[in-house]
Amino acid sequence: MEQTKNIMQYDTVSLDDENNAIVIIDQTKLPGRIERIQLRTAQEIWEAIYRLQVRGAPAIGVTAAFGIYLLAKAVDTQQYEEFYQEFARQKEYLDSSRPTAVNLSWALKRMERVVLQAKERPVEEIKRRLKEEAVEIWQEDIRVCKAIGEYGLTLLKPGDGILTHCNAGKLAAVQYGTATAPIYLGQERGYGFRVFADETRPLLQGARLTSFELLASGVDVTLICDNMSGAVMRNGWVNAVLVGCDRVAANGDTANKIGTSVVAAVAKQYGVPVYIAAPTATIDLHTPTGDEIVIEQRKAEEVTEMWYQTSMAPQGVKVYNPAFDVTDHRLIAGIVTEYGIAREPYTESLREIFQRKEKEEQRKEEHQS
Amino acid sequence: MEQTKNIMQYDTVSLDDENNAIVIIDQTKLPGRIERIQLRTAQEIWEAIYRLQVRGAPAIGVTAAFGIYLLAKAVDTQQYEEFYQEFARQKEYLDSSRPTAVNLSWALKRMERVVLQAKERPVEEIKRRLKEEAVEIWQEDIRVCKAIGEYGLTLLKPGDGILTHCNAGKLAAVQYGTATAPIYLGQERGYGFRVFADETRPLLQGARLTSFELLASGVDVTLICDNMSGAVMRNGWVNAVLVGCDRVAANGDTANKIGTSVVAAVAKQYGVPVYIAAPTATIDLHTPTGDEIVIEQRKAEEVTEMWYQTSMAPQGVKVYNPAFDVTDHRLIAGIVTEYGIAREPYTESLREIFQRKEKEEQRKEEHQS
Repeated sequence: MEQTKNIMQYDTVSLDDENNAIVIIDQTKLPGRIERIQLRTAQEIWEAIYRLQVRGAPAIGVTAAFGIYLLAKAVDTQQYEEFYQEFARQKEYLDSSRPTAVNLSWALKRMERVVLQAKERPVEEIKRRLKEEAVEIWQEDIRVCKAIGEYGLTLLKPGDGILTHCNAGKLAAVQYGTATAPIYLGQERGYGFRVFADETRPLLQGARLTSFELLASGVDVTLICDNMSGAVMRNGWVNAVLVGCDRVAANGDTANKIGTSVVAAVAKQYGVPVYIAAPTATIDLHTPTGDEIVIEQRKAEEVTEMWYQTSMAPQGVKVYNPAFDVTDHRLIAGIVTEYGIAREPYTESLREIFQRKEKEEQRKEEHQS
Repeated sequence: MEQTKNIMQYDTVSLDDENNAIVIIDQTKLPGRIERIQLRTAQEIWEAIYRLQVRGAPAIGVTAAFGIYLLAKAVDTQQYEEFYQEFARQKEYLDSSRPTAVNLSWALKRMERVVLQAKERPVEEIKRRLKEEAVEIWQEDIRVCKAIGEYGLTLLKPGDGILTHCNAGKLAAVQYGTATAPIYLGQERGYGFRVFADETRPLLQGARLTSFELLASGVDVTLICDNMSGAVMRNGWVNAVLVGCDRVAANGDTANKIGTSVVAAVAKQYGVPVYIAAPTATIDLHTPTGDEIVIEQRKAEEVTEMWYQTSMAPQGVKVYNPAFDVTDHRLIAGIVTEYGIAREPYTESLREIFQRKEKEEQRKEEHQS
């Protein structure tokens, strides 16, 4: 596990500006092989997001920000109009890599705002500002995860059993992760959590990534199949469910990795609270309820074949393979953000979270000026 | 699919008495290869049950009955005491192959009764009676599945969406299956069901077996991962859950393939009724509730490795791998047996089912004598 421990010291996504590359840990190779790869072209970045070499809403946002910066940097012109046209084209391309994760378009829009606001400035300065913004998105991610960790930890007590689904871990962000942030902070402070990691079919992010990063960090983790959550909860082993999230609607409905709504229904059955770790960047007040969230449908082969090697289902069988599902807000005990914990009624509490965020951002700006 | 269609005409388990063998379809090879294999020795029979080459409560019962007959037939003695001692030794051995399925011990006990009741008869005659009893268990299984199919069909309407978990299909019995019997009967009568088959981790009986046998029979089947039941139910595609079962306790709690309690919790969330197909042989009135049912724990490698080829989880990770879980009777809308449908309160309705069964058996005996 020495090699494993080392990998935990790397950021999941980082910028190598000198070499015009984004450096990521190729997550499709874990846990068997630990490979850091460089992304340079638009297609490499698009593919890395689409093929889940980099995944998890926050990490996708950071990758898109670094990506659009590098692609903009390579645009060889001094003319704003030409520059912006090319920027917009690349932005749209990157934006098409995954439809459900709101962080992707959120990060790209934030980068676009930099370009639009600096219309009068020389292109070289716009490029410099784009880099600053991308690095800020990256640093923000680390701060946000830490804050979620602190708030989340207030919901837990030493010795708790925690069930998590998919990977909303360090490997889904830059550091700490979202759903795992309270676990890592608790680990540093001797809470002695026992974590159950759903393997998360079809792509097994829980088996390959979550159990990998928790094990490497010395957390007591037990791997289960997705359909075993009922058994462990019936045994009384789970005190809280902590999961990440891809989009939160205004009413508190959340789109999360496929299977999260299943865990939530089971948790309700056993009286276990479900907490969603959600950076405010994943909260979308313009989406009224979960019914309006577009769910990405993925290839049948992810279900029928194991890494495209051994066929596991009869040829020709129909497959339904949604990447996410919607968890009804009535099944959610709390949505943990970097500005505090939202609870029922979510329509109000999420608004309050945003008001708090705006106030703090204003205060920061006033402080700076 | 021609080869597939042919295989559907074979019984899942049959006796080849002339060659002293049980003939089974090796289910660990499906759907990739269709192999019929012969079981002759006690170890071969034990291994076939343990390794799930033959699986499903009813098929295990029939295999055990044929098995103990063949092993008894091979005992070379005319002395009852010696014969019975050897019989009891082999019975105990076969009984140890899978602890949760009540049909295994049920079938073996039924065979033992034949031996005990014929104490005064020559060993050759006892062997003949054992064969008759084993063949009767086999025929009964076919009759029982048909009856469950008829009762189950009364709970469904044309065009219904049906979700099933694991394989309680033809491949789990001799013909028709239990949970699939209403589907096959409905198919014959033009009901046009749309079936969703959970893949059923870790051993993928749903992907490999259920979707295989339904597809081969022309049923409209869609394969999903276990964690997608929430998504399909939220879409409104499921009108009923139909699953098999390994043991029913007196209060109606059921032990089923791991993940069934998860499906049941999700179904409750979406107001979908859950029906358990349960031959009376799986009902155990001596077990008061689900808490008293022993749950078989299986090897970690079933979860961490895909057919022992590609590792899917980090080395050294803890794994919890129960083969079954308990579904609370409050989540069950009906238990469909060959003597009718039991409903809440189960303590009474299951008793009534047994009274009906006893009456019918008495009537049959009176008719014969």
